[in-house]
Amino acid sequence: MWETTKRDFVVSWTRTIAFSCAENEYSFMRETDSLSENGSGDRKEEIMRATYRVFRTEGYAGLSISKIADEVGVSKSALYNHYSGKDELLVAFLEYVMDKYSDEIQHSDTENPIVYLKLFKKTLLSEESIENNGNSDVPIDLFETIMQLKVQAVHNEVFREHFTRDDQFEHERLADRVRSGIEEGYFQDVDPDATAEFVQTVVEGAILRQTTTDSTSLQNIRRELDEYLRCRLIADPEKFNLRD
Amino acid sequence: MWETTKRDFVVSWTRTIAFSCAENEYSFMRETDSLSENGSGDRKEEIMRATYRVFRTEGYAGLSISKIADEVGVSKSALYNHYSGKDELLVAFLEYVMDKYSDEIQHSDTENPIVYLKLFKKTLLSEESIENNGNSDVPIDLFETIMQLKVQAVHNEVFREHFTRDDQFEHERLADRVRSGIEEGYFQDVDPDATAEFVQTVVEGAILRQTTTDSTSLQNIRRELDEYLRCRLIADPEKFNLRD
Repeated sequence: MWETTKRDFVVSWTRTIAFSCAENEYSFMRETDSLSENGSGDRKEEIMRATYRVFRTEGYAGLSISKIADEVGVSKSALYNHYSGKDELLVAFLEYVMDKYSDEIQHSDTENPIVYLKLFKKTLLSEESIENNGNSDVPIDLFETIMQLKVQAVHNEVFREHFTRDDQFEHERLADRVRSGIEEGYFQDVDPDATAEFVQTVVEGAILRQTTTDSTSLQNIRRELDEYLRCRLIADPEKFNLRD
Repeated sequence: MWETTKRDFVVSWTRTIAFSCAENEYSFMRETDSLSENGSGDRKEEIMRATYRVFRTEGYAGLSISKIADEVGVSKSALYNHYSGKDELLVAFLEYVMDKYSDEIQHSDTENPIVYLKLFKKTLLSEESIENNGNSDVPIDLFETIMQLKVQAVHNEVFREHFTRDDQFEHERLADRVRSGIEEGYFQDVDPDATAEFVQTVVEGAILRQTTTDSTSLQNIRRELDEYLRCRLIADPEKFNLRD
């Protein structure tokens, strides 16, 4: 049940990749490493994997359509037929990674919104998901990549549109769950949008802290988020223990 | 009282600049613009202001010791005498901005830890502080600059050390206030470190959302943070209204 639910658990953007599907992520990146050797996969896959490899080596500033073309072994103009520039290519990469996991991740079969919230929390704020999946530090690499691209949205409209869309998608999913939880009597009569946004904010803040400082305690953040949810959201705190 | 407390309010790193001292920030940046024209200020100030100008134009990738030297009108080697590279120069810039406001910002004279928390929240999570200080969008520019530098900490040890140190400094300040609030009976018997880290996480998440998407509602985040504080921290919710 846990495994199925975990897989079916719907999350959006980058966190999908960075946290919830750590194992898949790892295999994605292993494939990434070996793709150019065995030549398998279609052209789009190949371009996306080359994009990831080049970004990891060169960073945002050093990445160019030209370098990706060299890496894939196609002409620059062939790439320009599909992507008008490196920003469009990188947003396509972000969407590709999201789609890849959306294929595997169906709508959640978790009817109980409290169980859903537990999974949300466990999935997004777990050290195990980030670091201890037994597969080296590869997932945190992809996660860092996404954070570096996210900050491009500060001053770049192409990325800003992407991350706004992604953020709203996740927001709707989460707010809908809160809404149905209220209707079904699991939750108190809160503002679903405010509650969803607050949970998103905590998750984003935790990710930012985790990737940019050495002093973050996800355990503390998780525990205090529990307290917020218990106090603000859960209709009957005695009946449901979010720490499970 | 409010003005004095606001000025004396102790916060750390970049949020000091980005939020709490918007007016000073603005004058800092006005000076920045005019410095090269009137030639006033000492050399260090001049280098820091040149750093800010070049960063705003060129970004992290385009900034170099050489460009800063040109901007200031000194030799490259003169700059290398003080900074071993551009990362050290940029960290010096971050520390300079923090010091600049630390001079003005004394230890808080707010004895009541609930008033302190109100100020903390009002200062860090206020649209007014960010956008509506009547002085154009300049403060958000500096704020964006800092977020762009912060994400360098993802993979750059020099920035990571700086932001970890900064984060810990702010954490200690905040946790101490929670600790004394517990001793004085204002707060419940919580874990001061966990509470402080959670508040920091919410603030960081709000900043990240605010700078990278168009869908953030600081009002929602502020309201839910109130609910968390009311429920988790305040000993007598009837007596103290955090929304003031």
